[in-house]
Amino acid sequence: MTFPVVGMVGGGQLARMTHEAGIPLGISFKLLSDTPQDSAALVVNDVVVGDYRDLATLRAFAKGCDVITFDHEHVPTEHLRALEADGIPVRPGPDALVHAQDKGVMRARLTALGVPCPRHRIVTDPADVARFAAEVGGFPVVLKTVRGGYDGKGVWLVGTPAEAEDAFRAGVPVLGEERVDFRRELAANVVRSPHGQAVAYPVVESRQVAGVCDTVIAPAPELAPGLAASAQETALRIATELGVVGHLAVELFETRDGRVLVNELAMRPHNSGHWTQDGAVTSQFANHLRAVLDLPLGDPRARAPWTVMANVLGGDYPEMYPAYLHCMARDPGLKIHMYGKDVRPGRKVGHVTTYGDDLAEVTERARHAADYLRGLIDE
Amino acid sequence: MTFPVVGMVGGGQLARMTHEAGIPLGISFKLLSDTPQDSAALVVNDVVVGDYRDLATLRAFAKGCDVITFDHEHVPTEHLRALEADGIPVRPGPDALVHAQDKGVMRARLTALGVPCPRHRIVTDPADVARFAAEVGGFPVVLKTVRGGYDGKGVWLVGTPAEAEDAFRAGVPVLGEERVDFRRELAANVVRSPHGQAVAYPVVESRQVAGVCDTVIAPAPELAPGLAASAQETALRIATELGVVGHLAVELFETRDGRVLVNELAMRPHNSGHWTQDGAVTSQFANHLRAVLDLPLGDPRARAPWTVMANVLGGDYPEMYPAYLHCMARDPGLKIHMYGKDVRPGRKVGHVTTYGDDLAEVTERARHAADYLRGLIDE
Repeated sequence: MTFPVVGMVGGGQLARMTHEAGIPLGISFKLLSDTPQDSAALVVNDVVVGDYRDLATLRAFAKGCDVITFDHEHVPTEHLRALEADGIPVRPGPDALVHAQDKGVMRARLTALGVPCPRHRIVTDPADVARFAAEVGGFPVVLKTVRGGYDGKGVWLVGTPAEAEDAFRAGVPVLGEERVDFRRELAANVVRSPHGQAVAYPVVESRQVAGVCDTVIAPAPELAPGLAASAQETALRIATELGVVGHLAVELFETRDGRVLVNELAMRPHNSGHWTQDGAVTSQFANHLRAVLDLPLGDPRARAPWTVMANVLGGDYPEMYPAYLHCMARDPGLKIHMYGKDVRPGRKVGHVTTYGDDLAEVTERARHAADYLRGLIDE
Repeated sequence: MTFPVVGMVGGGQLARMTHEAGIPLGISFKLLSDTPQDSAALVVNDVVVGDYRDLATLRAFAKGCDVITFDHEHVPTEHLRALEADGIPVRPGPDALVHAQDKGVMRARLTALGVPCPRHRIVTDPADVARFAAEVGGFPVVLKTVRGGYDGKGVWLVGTPAEAEDAFRAGVPVLGEERVDFRRELAANVVRSPHGQAVAYPVVESRQVAGVCDTVIAPAPELAPGLAASAQETALRIATELGVVGHLAVELFETRDGRVLVNELAMRPHNSGHWTQDGAVTSQFANHLRAVLDLPLGDPRARAPWTVMANVLGGDYPEMYPAYLHCMARDPGLKIHMYGKDVRPGRKVGHVTTYGDDLAEVTERARHAADYLRGLIDE
């Protein structure tokens, strides 16, 4: 049978879980990984170890692939254009992907589209940060390097011009943003295929701790139906206008005055969509593959009234297996997803999901397991 | 992180789907496959190609594995004993597995345990078959080679002594069984771990066409609660008495006079349990891995009122991808599981599952997809 070959650049847990989703699809999955020990490289059969920043490596990897897609957004735009010029479908393509790579480009484009965003502009030095703060109602303000940040890295909350100095050290352009008085963070996950079919997952609440996603609740509790629909429409519109192919995560602020503002975009399976593996008819990983192959998309609906995902972060104890066994014994319905990574304090090494009818109970089960695996609790 | 290494002997679709289930568990999965093109070898990273009938190959494969388990039941018993003598945990162990390898041993043991079976005895030649037929009420009777049969192979329904001659040609002992007047076939799937924990999946109805599993309905419709409980108890008792570790499928006849008789045993994930991938909280593959690792078992309960699994058999047309695309477009909730195998007429190349509240609708969706993929219908 000649089913297609998907090449994924990047060997992290997103690629690992995409391979898992690709097995029942019957496709062939090829991986370009930095090392043979990367999370996905431990489970994928067809692995090329190499540097995604090197065009010759990318070109050799792409040979024999029907489509190239990504576990991360770090492949240089000019390399993606070169692959396209070689005739390799790159999904999402460079013109879309740049909006997930460069926060300055993203903010400019969304503003031009009339999508509500925090007030923002490029700032040039600490004195300019002070001027920007004055424009948006005063300190504190948020500074972000336009490229290279993730999980709280490359982001600063600054209260004075002096505190702004760090953000300029890397020599990367810096975007200033008003500090949004948000009630909570939401995420609208959508998937779009090349011929324009799109599906929207239920809008979720995403709780961050120290800039890292901690817990995701699907659907977002007590979200006004109008706001939920508006968030989904915004995400679908962004996917269409930017020509996104594959999974698009739109991270949102729900403000205390009842608005929804776009915080970040990610064009790949996303932590806020991990709940779909156990909680939706079709997971984000399966739908990402279906989208990049231009296959019809799968049903994005939830299977249970509530699904909660909690990230498992490494604690002080490197050996997680005894805690993992304990969690299985305590909760036979717990779904554990380990990434095969060595435990380091604060590192994402897995996630758990729970689902059911009672939100408080479902949340307690997920939080307990994640906290137990990290070593924060011992009972 | 030092999570354990599971070695699976046999590269078929059961190993493929066990690897899929092992990825979220964070374990390492090692495969002994006949060829690099076997279904599982196409997706597993750590593959040894070799002959499972060769003890030296098995020993080399087992080195570095924490436990050895199986995709099929064909490994010679003496080789399993040799691995155990080397200190390698073999699960299920040879003393249990022989009951899934040798139908004569199985019948003798189940009868000794008082488990209801069709009337049976070893028959020695066509004349003895005639005597056996007379003992059980006349022809037709069923003949089975005690070893080596599967999917209707090694099984004969014979109406005369002359028709019995084929069964004796292979020189393997032949078991005679009464032909049971059954209403339908059921399967009771259970999983047992070394320290004795066990779970029972809902009893399913299994429909065969030409000796090959065609459709599985979970739970078995209109099954009397007493019979369902009795079937589960029988399966759990067999697992305990035989010391099974891992998944045990007990194939059953429901007779027209309201009894349940054991037909066959399989000690590995089984076609009658494929519905659990999409239809149960914990799949048979995940629970098989948890069992062989002596981890606490996962919840076996169904997630939907009805789940239907239909096998996808190869048809006359070797290229299934266009039909696969069509099925995805027709039914966004369809779950397709392809095995990566070349299409040959009648060969199992995948399965589909559907689930929902309405049995007729769920069944129609699964049957339509399986028939369309096979090329039996074109609309």
